[in-house]
Amino acid sequence: MRILILGGDRYLGWPASMYFSNLGHEVACVDNFIKRFWEARLGVSPLNPIDPLVNRVDSFKEASGKDVQVYIGDLAESERFVYRVFQEFIPDVVIHLAEQPSAPFSMRSRSDCVETHRNNIIGNLNVMFAIQKYCPDCHLIKLGTMGEYGTPNIAIEEGWLEVDHKGRKDRVLYPKKPGSFYHCSKVADSVNLEFACRAWGMRVTDLNQGVVYGSPEIDFASEPGLHTSFHYDETFGTVLNRFMIQAIVERPLTVYGNGSQTRGFLHINDTLQCLRIAAENPASVGDFRVFNQFTETFSVASLARMVVDSAVELGLKTSIANIENPRVEQYDHYYEAVNTSLFELGLEPMLLDTGRVQKMISELMVEKTRINEKYFAPKTKWSFQ
Amino acid sequence: MRILILGGDRYLGWPASMYFSNLGHEVACVDNFIKRFWEARLGVSPLNPIDPLVNRVDSFKEASGKDVQVYIGDLAESERFVYRVFQEFIPDVVIHLAEQPSAPFSMRSRSDCVETHRNNIIGNLNVMFAIQKYCPDCHLIKLGTMGEYGTPNIAIEEGWLEVDHKGRKDRVLYPKKPGSFYHCSKVADSVNLEFACRAWGMRVTDLNQGVVYGSPEIDFASEPGLHTSFHYDETFGTVLNRFMIQAIVERPLTVYGNGSQTRGFLHINDTLQCLRIAAENPASVGDFRVFNQFTETFSVASLARMVVDSAVELGLKTSIANIENPRVEQYDHYYEAVNTSLFELGLEPMLLDTGRVQKMISELMVEKTRINEKYFAPKTKWSFQ
Repeated sequence: MRILILGGDRYLGWPASMYFSNLGHEVACVDNFIKRFWEARLGVSPLNPIDPLVNRVDSFKEASGKDVQVYIGDLAESERFVYRVFQEFIPDVVIHLAEQPSAPFSMRSRSDCVETHRNNIIGNLNVMFAIQKYCPDCHLIKLGTMGEYGTPNIAIEEGWLEVDHKGRKDRVLYPKKPGSFYHCSKVADSVNLEFACRAWGMRVTDLNQGVVYGSPEIDFASEPGLHTSFHYDETFGTVLNRFMIQAIVERPLTVYGNGSQTRGFLHINDTLQCLRIAAENPASVGDFRVFNQFTETFSVASLARMVVDSAVELGLKTSIANIENPRVEQYDHYYEAVNTSLFELGLEPMLLDTGRVQKMISELMVEKTRINEKYFAPKTKWSFQ
Repeated sequence: MRILILGGDRYLGWPASMYFSNLGHEVACVDNFIKRFWEARLGVSPLNPIDPLVNRVDSFKEASGKDVQVYIGDLAESERFVYRVFQEFIPDVVIHLAEQPSAPFSMRSRSDCVETHRNNIIGNLNVMFAIQKYCPDCHLIKLGTMGEYGTPNIAIEEGWLEVDHKGRKDRVLYPKKPGSFYHCSKVADSVNLEFACRAWGMRVTDLNQGVVYGSPEIDFASEPGLHTSFHYDETFGTVLNRFMIQAIVERPLTVYGNGSQTRGFLHINDTLQCLRIAAENPASVGDFRVFNQFTETFSVASLARMVVDSAVELGLKTSIANIENPRVEQYDHYYEAVNTSLFELGLEPMLLDTGRVQKMISELMVEKTRINEKYFAPKTKWSFQ
């Protein structure tokens, strides 16, 4: 298949580019490097220094013999660029990972909130129009997030809900309760895509992904220069990745509030597997298909405990610090989310236990001297003032 | 009260400015005249030529003795402008009517779709941040649309839905099924506002308005130079207004498809009354309150029939032409929408019958020579190609 990966430079997009290339697909990736710009502005770096994308493509070619095409440009700013990419590459599948991915980033200020909406919503619209213009039968796989649902008091279904109301029935888009402006922007994307499926007959898979952790365990991903960007800072780091880094430098794991917040999680390898499953089983014409993409749920507290236990066995001294929650979140809430679709299509999950945490910590330990402890403390509050 | 009206130059905003001023409130209005620019680009004009806003404010002052302040600037483009307005005027109530209001406009092209999202979503975000910064206790009354709900097979509630699912209950945002990118942008606004009510404790009333018709019957509104802009074109004209104008020039009323599409409707005077009711009964802190703002429902076909009947009695020869529907819409659908909140707060509706249609047609007849029949035919299709 001809697979176009949007957002090919960072945490998920680069491994996805190598992974689909390894599988023998023709891969092109797109990036504008705006995430590197945001990282520079915020003063944070991933754990490893990351080579420029074109250099990594060269290194990957040397290692694997495979070509990955690169298009450099902005999906939200330049429709001419977007149209040129689609006209030239004519993808069978588009994997859209090019959105501003951080809740705290979107809550930092008015301008970062607006930037999140502009980048995500307008970028996604330009992709939708480009698909209609150049490859209307193309399957769009769009990364959403489980955080769009929030923590409702009823079971979270996969995108749609059968409702029985006043004696009548309908199948409706599952009601969303996003937890940040970032999550709001993703809800807006879903709304636009569902409409376009109805109006234009688009084929869309919306992957509502849980919290990702770990480093990709795929061919070539751990060779020099081919690592993916691994963040552990407040803004771009996900919680388990941050906990493991805190454990390595023997700092307390900072749990926001009482840690009873429960979320879906998955290893980055399972992200890749889910993208492959979605690509190999395309949505039908006019189908807005939603998969909840996580393998298991944990409370933040139980995750912290698992990391502490794992670290202790490795001889690391760490503990749990419950700090003031900068976010507005529910505690001790109901959380039951359906995630059967991807399993039914063959997902074989890489589940979390102390053994796996120890393996990840040991691998990350090599980079111990690069860890910047200043990245740990949350500075962005959800409340306005 | 200090009332800030966003979008004070056009169909709803100008009458709202006069109406609240007539009631003795301190009124300021904001506009960037982008709707005039869009009208020029599309080559359509309202029925009456409309004086520049500052001239109308002068004429209104001469007629009524009341001052209406004017701020000229762009809510989406310039946060400095938005912040200055809020810092200077410190409103008690903000009435936000400044959005791109047309479904066909949003479907014309990629750039018009993007423009709709930019103007509406970013403009609304800037207003939200300005309120938090300068007047966090201010009550935001935001114009939404009944079209956000679409035509579900269950009763449309007012913004929220009590759901009973797998033996558990929750109150969730009513699931939306928007009918165009314009409607999608309004859904995104609602999502952002509901989140900000939870995270920031905003006070918001989202008015999901039906299709408005007629000219305002309030003091000074029919004096020379003080008319509001009345559109009857495909893009900015609403269906009943267009039907009445078609009847006046004795052209067939163009019904899209079989006309069984049912919608909520209200007279523009009732829009003003609803805005007043919302302003006088503010939402509580943290409350995302939704009112469905329409007074009665009609199918498009029954509305066309009422206009034909009314016109015939006035000696006008017209008929109904069912033309190909440029939109993607459901026919013969279920439609039951709750609209009790505003009635419970005192709304006294101005209902539609052949008498009222005849009165409106007679008043519009004065402008018969200005009618441009080229505006009637729909040119924008919902399908992409």
